[in-house]
Amino acid sequence: MEEIVSLCKRRGFVFQSSEIYGGFASCWDYGPLGAELKRNVKNAWWRAVVQERDDMVGLDSSILMHPKIWEASGHIATFNDPLVDCKTCKSRFRADHLDTTPCPQKSSKMAGQAEPCALTEARLFNLMFKTHVGPVDRDDDSNVAYLRPETAQGIFVNFPNVLTTSRKKLPFGIAQIGKAFRNEITPGNFTFRTREFEQMEIEYFCRPEDAPRLHEEWIQARYQWYLDLGMKRENLSLRPHEKDELAHYAQSAESTGTTDIEYQFPFMDKPAELEGIANRADFDLSQHAKFSGQKLTYFDQANNEHITPYVIEPSAGADRATLAFLVDAYHEEEVKEGDTRVVLKFHPQLAPVKVAILPLAKNKAPIVEVAQRLRGDLAKKMVAQYDDTAGIGKLYRRQDEIGTPYCVTVDFDTVEKDNAVTVRDRDTMQQERIALDQVKNYLLDKLDV
Amino acid sequence: MEEIVSLCKRRGFVFQSSEIYGGFASCWDYGPLGAELKRNVKNAWWRAVVQERDDMVGLDSSILMHPKIWEASGHIATFNDPLVDCKTCKSRFRADHLDTTPCPQKSSKMAGQAEPCALTEARLFNLMFKTHVGPVDRDDDSNVAYLRPETAQGIFVNFPNVLTTSRKKLPFGIAQIGKAFRNEITPGNFTFRTREFEQMEIEYFCRPEDAPRLHEEWIQARYQWYLDLGMKRENLSLRPHEKDELAHYAQSAESTGTTDIEYQFPFMDKPAELEGIANRADFDLSQHAKFSGQKLTYFDQANNEHITPYVIEPSAGADRATLAFLVDAYHEEEVKEGDTRVVLKFHPQLAPVKVAILPLAKNKAPIVEVAQRLRGDLAKKMVAQYDDTAGIGKLYRRQDEIGTPYCVTVDFDTVEKDNAVTVRDRDTMQQERIALDQVKNYLLDKLDV
Repeated sequence: MEEIVSLCKRRGFVFQSSEIYGGFASCWDYGPLGAELKRNVKNAWWRAVVQERDDMVGLDSSILMHPKIWEASGHIATFNDPLVDCKTCKSRFRADHLDTTPCPQKSSKMAGQAEPCALTEARLFNLMFKTHVGPVDRDDDSNVAYLRPETAQGIFVNFPNVLTTSRKKLPFGIAQIGKAFRNEITPGNFTFRTREFEQMEIEYFCRPEDAPRLHEEWIQARYQWYLDLGMKRENLSLRPHEKDELAHYAQSAESTGTTDIEYQFPFMDKPAELEGIANRADFDLSQHAKFSGQKLTYFDQANNEHITPYVIEPSAGADRATLAFLVDAYHEEEVKEGDTRVVLKFHPQLAPVKVAILPLAKNKAPIVEVAQRLRGDLAKKMVAQYDDTAGIGKLYRRQDEIGTPYCVTVDFDTVEKDNAVTVRDRDTMQQERIALDQVKNYLLDKLDV
Repeated sequence: MEEIVSLCKRRGFVFQSSEIYGGFASCWDYGPLGAELKRNVKNAWWRAVVQERDDMVGLDSSILMHPKIWEASGHIATFNDPLVDCKTCKSRFRADHLDTTPCPQKSSKMAGQAEPCALTEARLFNLMFKTHVGPVDRDDDSNVAYLRPETAQGIFVNFPNVLTTSRKKLPFGIAQIGKAFRNEITPGNFTFRTREFEQMEIEYFCRPEDAPRLHEEWIQARYQWYLDLGMKRENLSLRPHEKDELAHYAQSAESTGTTDIEYQFPFMDKPAELEGIANRADFDLSQHAKFSGQKLTYFDQANNEHITPYVIEPSAGADRATLAFLVDAYHEEEVKEGDTRVVLKFHPQLAPVKVAILPLAKNKAPIVEVAQRLRGDLAKKMVAQYDDTAGIGKLYRRQDEIGTPYCVTVDFDTVEKDNAVTVRDRDTMQQERIALDQVKNYLLDKLDV
């Protein structure tokens, strides 16, 4: 993990939030390259699940919502962790995670200085962040609002509006990307578990009898998405939840449960969830119908009946996916005896920089001019970086390390002889001479941007 | 405004948040078309200010940050509104906005039933939303955090990390898109002023002596961006702030002030701010250096000196830009005597749906097959909608109303004679016959997606 965190910081993928103030609450900021990478992950998701499908539409609902939504969803009653205090070190822990908690007492115990860690009784602690909205006194509870702990509920409460305006027929889905917040007791593992995070969620509405088949289809479709974007099959796995770990909405007899897509991060001892695909049955629409007094049904013309659709929910974490794609892309390769390169083998759709333009001589006006014009031209269609601050060998290594699929070198031959440039492939390191006026189309073909 | 709000709801651009629960706190949700439109606005901004420029990088910092940041920025001390209570109607108002406040007393007064509205003394009310982070008791003030009231500070505190990792030289800028929150006393005008909103902010760092020129350049560049995306020049204006309305960071003698790009919304009595372009001088970096104890300077190699850069800040609202583009695109046109169409003349980059595929006969298998295959093929590159739920005249009007630049009709000739389709232009309503295998390139050329 240190290698990844260090690369992330050194090359501008991920910084600690508020770092100049000593950091804050396990929040993280995406630097220049991380911001591009995460944008690409989210755009690839949107393209696959909204744009390319005819049965899906997008949504962008607000983070602050009516507090009654969290009563209906069950979050106020059940979204709690049991907490205990260590009487010796005064730290607070999750009672159900004591085995894996980094308690100072336990650490010293492991170091051979065994000491009992006396704990208080467990108390329930709600994971939603609370705030107050409107021009009233802060301590007045009548204006409480919560930062949404999931984007899903924003989709459910918009079901009737989307249904009416989009004219979709069952089965169809609504997709949304957005921030969610959970006051986790023990965040950690870099950007894997954070209190502020971004979700990519789908609620796919269908007739009850179609739910088991569609659940299976979505599990396969979402698993395939990670593979299509280059993730290694051996690091991915599917794990159906055990009965006793199912969330309340997936416990009913009607549900076919939840299956997680897991990734084996090198710094964790077992595969960890990237995405959960749940069959929520009609739990949410029924609850919101009950709590709001509104009709949240679907009129099935073919069967002439009003039904409450079932819902399949593929719920992914944008930060976790970004981290997994980053870790998965990381390679150290021996180029030749004693010479190693670090290369991030990102899928071209995900690479933060698509092409680097490298002038072979930084002070030769004709070369610089061609190189800068080329960058400007390419930059209309893709992220293109100009770099002339080192020798060509070092520049290639720099681009390898951030996963740039192609480097284009402008040299003396370009301006004196052939009006062509050298295009180098990141993975094969093969070089090809391409006519200057063909470079753009060559890259667009290869990159599929 | 009613027409716009009604179109927005009817066609799925904007819904009231938590509508089934009666709405909430003047928050709004973007429906299927609104989500695409806003995505397009944000992507067009990112493309123009990050991707196409060689002197800019992106960033994505967290919403929750170290609370000391808001001390340094001045938000804790100065980000207050003075509030008064009306003793009669018990409503609370901004003391500095009493002229324009919709107080029930004032309304009845206007209706001829004059009545004095006795007010309490003004009290200061901070506009930042407060919450508590971490596993401690909720009422403990040691773990307070604020929802950021602007994305700008996330950029300033990352200045040293970005500087080191990106190897940029002055002048260069950092751009960021993200949610911000302000507990406004009187939100309103639909999505124009809301408590939760999305900003598109740039902090452009430069040598102090270059700041006045770069300030002017950014004002022009940002003004041009709205024009380039089709906004009507007569609705846009530039307005330098008066001395007495300048924010604290733009009041110094070194600053060249702030200029707003304003838009004349049809439902407001005067032009309103879409974007402010401020010269913040070295206010923010100096403050954070002071409060964090860290060095936030730049080493200028050419002059062999450490300087604190000045900052030009073009700060735009993504929701306001989206609303302005929507309003500006709205046209009612008499097509022929007594026949009017509503058409949203979006720039192709902004249109939520780029092309609609309309089969002329919904039950003819060969036509449906060609039409669906075409949609699937186009959808890999652009948002393409399939619609067969009405006659062709009605389908065209529907697409006009949501601003789809092109409609493609698949008819009997397509499958029986010429293997071509009819492409209709939204604005001219001219139709052109295009070979089926040329449609994709034809559209990609026209749309520049």
